[in-house]
Amino acid sequence: MSNSLISRNDLDFLLHDWLKIDDLADRDLLAAFLDLSEKLAADQFLPHYRQSDIDEPELTADGVHVCAPIGPALKQYADLGFFSAGFEELHGGSGLPFIACAASFAYFAAANIATAAYPMLTVANARLITTFGSASQIETFALPQIEGRWFGTMCLSETQAGSSLADLQTRAVPDGTDELGSRFRLTGNKMWISGGDQDISENIVHLVLAKVPDAQGRLPEGTPGISLFIVPKILPDGTRNDLSVAGLNHKMGYRGTANCVLNFGEGDGAVGWIVGEPGQGLRQMFLMMNEARISVGLGAAALGYRSHRLSVQYARERSQGRPIGERGGAPVAIIEHADVKRMLLAQKSYAEGALALCLYCARLVDLETTDADSAALLGLLTPVTKTWSSEYGLAANDIAIQIHGGYGYTRDFQVEQLWRDNRLNPIHEGTTGIQGIDLLGRKILRDGQALAVLEQAIRRCSEAAVHDASLGRFADELLDAWGQINAAIDCLRGCEGSSAFAHATLFLRAFGHTVVAWLWLDQALAARKLAEAGGADADFIDGKLMTFQYFFETELPNVAAWLAPILSKGNAVTTARTAIF
Amino acid sequence: MSNSLISRNDLDFLLHDWLKIDDLADRDLLAAFLDLSEKLAADQFLPHYRQSDIDEPELTADGVHVCAPIGPALKQYADLGFFSAGFEELHGGSGLPFIACAASFAYFAAANIATAAYPMLTVANARLITTFGSASQIETFALPQIEGRWFGTMCLSETQAGSSLADLQTRAVPDGTDELGSRFRLTGNKMWISGGDQDISENIVHLVLAKVPDAQGRLPEGTPGISLFIVPKILPDGTRNDLSVAGLNHKMGYRGTANCVLNFGEGDGAVGWIVGEPGQGLRQMFLMMNEARISVGLGAAALGYRSHRLSVQYARERSQGRPIGERGGAPVAIIEHADVKRMLLAQKSYAEGALALCLYCARLVDLETTDADSAALLGLLTPVTKTWSSEYGLAANDIAIQIHGGYGYTRDFQVEQLWRDNRLNPIHEGTTGIQGIDLLGRKILRDGQALAVLEQAIRRCSEAAVHDASLGRFADELLDAWGQINAAIDCLRGCEGSSAFAHATLFLRAFGHTVVAWLWLDQALAARKLAEAGGADADFIDGKLMTFQYFFETELPNVAAWLAPILSKGNAVTTARTAIF
Repeated sequence: MSNSLISRNDLDFLLHDWLKIDDLADRDLLAAFLDLSEKLAADQFLPHYRQSDIDEPELTADGVHVCAPIGPALKQYADLGFFSAGFEELHGGSGLPFIACAASFAYFAAANIATAAYPMLTVANARLITTFGSASQIETFALPQIEGRWFGTMCLSETQAGSSLADLQTRAVPDGTDELGSRFRLTGNKMWISGGDQDISENIVHLVLAKVPDAQGRLPEGTPGISLFIVPKILPDGTRNDLSVAGLNHKMGYRGTANCVLNFGEGDGAVGWIVGEPGQGLRQMFLMMNEARISVGLGAAALGYRSHRLSVQYARERSQGRPIGERGGAPVAIIEHADVKRMLLAQKSYAEGALALCLYCARLVDLETTDADSAALLGLLTPVTKTWSSEYGLAANDIAIQIHGGYGYTRDFQVEQLWRDNRLNPIHEGTTGIQGIDLLGRKILRDGQALAVLEQAIRRCSEAAVHDASLGRFADELLDAWGQINAAIDCLRGCEGSSAFAHATLFLRAFGHTVVAWLWLDQALAARKLAEAGGADADFIDGKLMTFQYFFETELPNVAAWLAPILSKGNAVTTARTAIF
Repeated sequence: MSNSLISRNDLDFLLHDWLKIDDLADRDLLAAFLDLSEKLAADQFLPHYRQSDIDEPELTADGVHVCAPIGPALKQYADLGFFSAGFEELHGGSGLPFIACAASFAYFAAANIATAAYPMLTVANARLITTFGSASQIETFALPQIEGRWFGTMCLSETQAGSSLADLQTRAVPDGTDELGSRFRLTGNKMWISGGDQDISENIVHLVLAKVPDAQGRLPEGTPGISLFIVPKILPDGTRNDLSVAGLNHKMGYRGTANCVLNFGEGDGAVGWIVGEPGQGLRQMFLMMNEARISVGLGAAALGYRSHRLSVQYARERSQGRPIGERGGAPVAIIEHADVKRMLLAQKSYAEGALALCLYCARLVDLETTDADSAALLGLLTPVTKTWSSEYGLAANDIAIQIHGGYGYTRDFQVEQLWRDNRLNPIHEGTTGIQGIDLLGRKILRDGQALAVLEQAIRRCSEAAVHDASLGRFADELLDAWGQINAAIDCLRGCEGSSAFAHATLFLRAFGHTVVAWLWLDQALAARKLAEAGGADADFIDGKLMTFQYFFETELPNVAAWLAPILSKGNAVTTARTAIF
């Protein structure tokens, strides 16, 4: 089963031949790190994949208990230094670049996304504290997470405030100052808290968004009034903080990750320390959000990727039917049937396309502090990476069920669980609809600078391809799609009021496919170069080239279809009254 | 919750204003029948929807036990005459047309597809026996099913023979003749048998495809050697037949329907009587397949439909966020957000589009025996109806989860179960890939007559629309799409060997969207007429017209995209070697 994880050939190709990260990380060191990742994922994460779907988290009087093998797996993950890998040495880390950590994480997400979610959240939490917290906060709350002894959560949503954080009602009242900074007492309820409680780590560090009331006890309106607080489950003096688990959410998938409703301050108020200045909560959270959204995309890509690998195995092993037009003779493996090959090509184009997109953005994370263009491009591509990987990773999972036929619909095969697990990804960390508004509003209509950087990159790639006899026409097709994107943007700029946003999701879809087409062309160029240099085997190279060709032939034409309602000024959505439903 | 079932306004509109079935069935009688259907579905099928997902069928020493409320619900279904409704009076039925039964079935499928599957299979089984069986077979095996005392199954697949029935290995050896006809002894294993065993009905009538060996004991090759046998669980003399349940399949959804592996003839061979002549099995089964495939499409449409109705309710009740550009003030219901409205329009266009398509074909079933054009059109549209409804019913379920956000991912809401349940429909009764080959090969490339009938119907509709100022441009768009379909067919006719079939699924997708666009235009014409006549309320009419407009603006452009690889002679699928994966 372990060869159902990420293909190492593909990962090496993407990291070295395509993204050329050898200046960022020592190649031998990285290879050893990825070897270890694959082994640990296969040995400790994969075996309890099904079990953690069946043995859901349970809430008892002493808290939440999760599926038994999750704890030992994460203990090894901690002991081998995976929590700390991406942190600076100053904080006890190994200083690996983000892209190396992302490549490693792909193995764990492919093997068991629900188990992998605990370190993902913990690392994001610790990184936020190391970025914005005081020295004593880092020492007290970040370092134990970097060691993997404590885990972390992000507490944003409330029952009445999911996508709309402006409506948060959790309140934080000042309660003096101590060596950890300004202390507050928090009261409120938080919803959808992944890892909100568990019986694995010694302590849990909650990062909680809340508002500080004014002198009259009123909470400030909107997002500018939001601050960020560190609220540990167990206080530094060893006593329990005033917070409790009100309930567990029973999910369709992703079940190994305990998802909790948390009550803060049913007694005197939960003790929390503010991070940085008041009113900076959302800004702090969103500065970390790029990484979190890329991680969600990467997880979704990994789930799609694994389902593709399982599909290929199944399609090679399962005999059924004969080539069209032939009767008699032995049945053939279903991989020989054209429609199965079509599905495998679609899956491969989605899974490898999404992985490439996520790793491209991971590289931008490493470059963003020193390169303004990379930072701009990262901002533009983040909603695309999160959404495209989620939507098309899921599409790859759907195809996997279809390739497995009736068997894929049973729990004897894992493709149905992979599908259920992945269905969360277009929802959490900002739904697809929210990402569309972010892309169109904040990242394009408000400021075209990032778009210009992307256009440069696309043109550079196309120009390189034009000189290749067999890639030239694809370069033209990419530029044509890009031209349509620009025409749509012009159209959207001309929309009255907020009506452009009625098309935001469709625009995101078209934009995403264009971006992935560009990256496929770029992968094809790298594959050709590798072939000319005599590297990699012919099947691998051909796999990249055929999948690239499939994507341009079959997927890229969708861009025009999705932009059609924008360019034709379709108004069904804006005109429709709600009473018609 | 019962208003989450099929909209009666919509059903009345489709049956009377659009399809004008008043010549087929007495309107008052039909209204009473549909009233009763809705009430029984709401009172007896809907309440155990979740329970039947949790309490899966269990196999014990005395057979399969299903979720407790399924039996009583189906007892009432039988007592009220729903099993018999569509049969001739001669066979104890009420002689209702197929379309009336289909409209009734939509309620039950929407309320609880897994419970509704038992009568669906039973009715199909009894109809096959009444069509092809002898008088004594009808008397003995069909009538108790028409009364709803016995249930029926269809035993086609085997472990090694799913889509490829030519490879069946179940053998039937002659064993004399009695008053029920030629008797055989059957040995073999059958897979994926829905309702293969249960503890509800007094007996179970299995219709089994098997092969009769030649003098040397060899089974005939291919499909011409397949015969059909009636194999009851309990023999007419009251003894148990030689068949047993080898196991249950544990499915992702649709769980209330026990899905069994059956072993026939572990002892002396299961006793069965042949239906009609030897070698006619597949032909007999496929003559019934039109109805079965329309029923699958209808079930899928109903699941999508219900998830749309639940989404509308949720979107009206859930407050979150504010219109784009506004800050402060109270949150609005999410149905006010453009992207939610877009999703609801897409859902409505899929759910109501699929229901319309299924009912259109159900009407053709009633006409096919007397009208050659209707028969041809039915053959052409059957793979489309089965597939489009399955794929887009499921898409409506997917959107329902997205509209519900995180809540939709929990088992506290039913949209996740509806999604899981519906995922079976693109697989059983012929996968989407199989339907594509059927449409392109058998129904189009082999003989263009049905295509000419469809073209006539599309042209008639377009001509009617051209005279309507606001519909005229849509008529042009429909004819344009139809022109692209024809261009693609020309292209596919020119393909070498079997390479056309590499595009069969994409062609089916494009063809399906064009057919549904035509039916939406036809619905829009009916809605306009109804409005002119002063019938129906303005919101209902507007709902039809806006959804029609949405479909043309946003969905119809996909046809060109899906046909692009055909028209550009894309060859990635045919060129790709299997070693590249």
